[in-house]
Amino acid sequence: MPGILMPIGGAEDRRAGKSILKKFVDICGGSDARLLVVPLASSMPQETGSLYQHIFLSLGANRVTILDITTRSQANDPAVRRYLENTTGIFFSGGDQLRLLSLIGSTTLGDMIRTHYEQGVHIAGTSAGASAMSEQMIAFGRSGMTPSQRMVQTASGLGLSKSFIIDQHFSQRKRLGRLLTAVALHPRLVGLGIDEDTSLMIHPDGCGEVIGTGCVTVVDGRQLEYSDIYAAKRYEPFTLTGVDVRRLEAGSRVTLPAYGPMP
Amino acid sequence: MPGILMPIGGAEDRRAGKSILKKFVDICGGSDARLLVVPLASSMPQETGSLYQHIFLSLGANRVTILDITTRSQANDPAVRRYLENTTGIFFSGGDQLRLLSLIGSTTLGDMIRTHYEQGVHIAGTSAGASAMSEQMIAFGRSGMTPSQRMVQTASGLGLSKSFIIDQHFSQRKRLGRLLTAVALHPRLVGLGIDEDTSLMIHPDGCGEVIGTGCVTVVDGRQLEYSDIYAAKRYEPFTLTGVDVRRLEAGSRVTLPAYGPMP
Repeated sequence: MPGILMPIGGAEDRRAGKSILKKFVDICGGSDARLLVVPLASSMPQETGSLYQHIFLSLGANRVTILDITTRSQANDPAVRRYLENTTGIFFSGGDQLRLLSLIGSTTLGDMIRTHYEQGVHIAGTSAGASAMSEQMIAFGRSGMTPSQRMVQTASGLGLSKSFIIDQHFSQRKRLGRLLTAVALHPRLVGLGIDEDTSLMIHPDGCGEVIGTGCVTVVDGRQLEYSDIYAAKRYEPFTLTGVDVRRLEAGSRVTLPAYGPMP
Repeated sequence: MPGILMPIGGAEDRRAGKSILKKFVDICGGSDARLLVVPLASSMPQETGSLYQHIFLSLGANRVTILDITTRSQANDPAVRRYLENTTGIFFSGGDQLRLLSLIGSTTLGDMIRTHYEQGVHIAGTSAGASAMSEQMIAFGRSGMTPSQRMVQTASGLGLSKSFIIDQHFSQRKRLGRLLTAVALHPRLVGLGIDEDTSLMIHPDGCGEVIGTGCVTVVDGRQLEYSDIYAAKRYEPFTLTGVDVRRLEAGSRVTLPAYGPMP
């Protein structure tokens, strides 16, 4: 049975109550939590790794290790397995999701992380670390509320879910347009737009619960009726109908696709 | 056992020997071939459908039906099944692959086409119809030999292969840069760049054979060593090492990933 996925929309409280990060420590075992911090999306991985190591230890985790590799060849070395031994949770920092995937995408380490998740290890990621989780990943794009053909670029993510495509800093950076565009490019997917200091706790049975101070926007493209994304070139707007959009506050529960292969 | 995939690079001979289209009729049963033409990538689907219907009948096929739908609701109607009854081969025309996928991507019809392929129906597609075959599809992009972050946009294709990403009009439109970029965005994939009037016959065991008057360029990203696609923004060039590039003439054989789920 897979673990819980916790995409966080970035800018989570790291100073006061740290409620989202504390929730992650709790589900990973509290004082028994053994965490791996993956700071490889960051341009300053050592500083970023130390920051989260400090926070998770202060929140009572038993052990917090920082993944320290700099090449794909290290990510493909079976010795990288030692980082995952007895780990109960993996945390992905912010930064640039394409930097992270350029380093570990489709490597031995990437495969091991997916296998550990499938066997019950919980995974949280903030900002770039949230985007990186899904199979289809938003690599980068433009802000704005109106979808247009060119406003989002997708790439291969970590593959922890085949059902979702995840965006972050969602309301703060006005990313509805690019999430709608991503769903038009990949109509079987459910888009998840996570606000800052907010997380969606996704259980493997598809039960989702919003925590934090913002909202989660669900952009469900599975019943897409019509899209003419092919006709409106570059940054012209296009028409999209049949996409179900919901906006969920903290405390809301939502039924999402369960973990598993998509048809 | 799946059928044979025949991506064609566009501008195939339709007047003289028609050798590539004839090869498709032959593998589909020759005078027993029962073909379905899918002209939905075209902006003039009726004209395009009739053109290929005429050609395939002149090449001796027993029956050639044209898929005639205009909405996703028709593509989701189980009655669409009648188009696939007793079909031995499906042919996808050129046009715009995103138009085709906006209409049938992740629909009942799209699922049925994949199931029929998996059960032995052969599939050919030219130009947009070649790009549409794979799970990760090149939707559109820029020409040029040098890869850059923004030069290619990928979307979900028909899902007939999880191993390839296919480009067409390859040498004629100088598309090496965008295929390299696509592989950097999806490092587990093997890129196939098909020249005009050329096809790669891909058997389900991974055996590939080039036919026609041009070349096939194989851009294998599975052993990617290094990519800094994240660092070079927009249309700046980026660095990519460890990608194996081969250029194969007609008559060449190549071992490709066999059909099946990717790790």
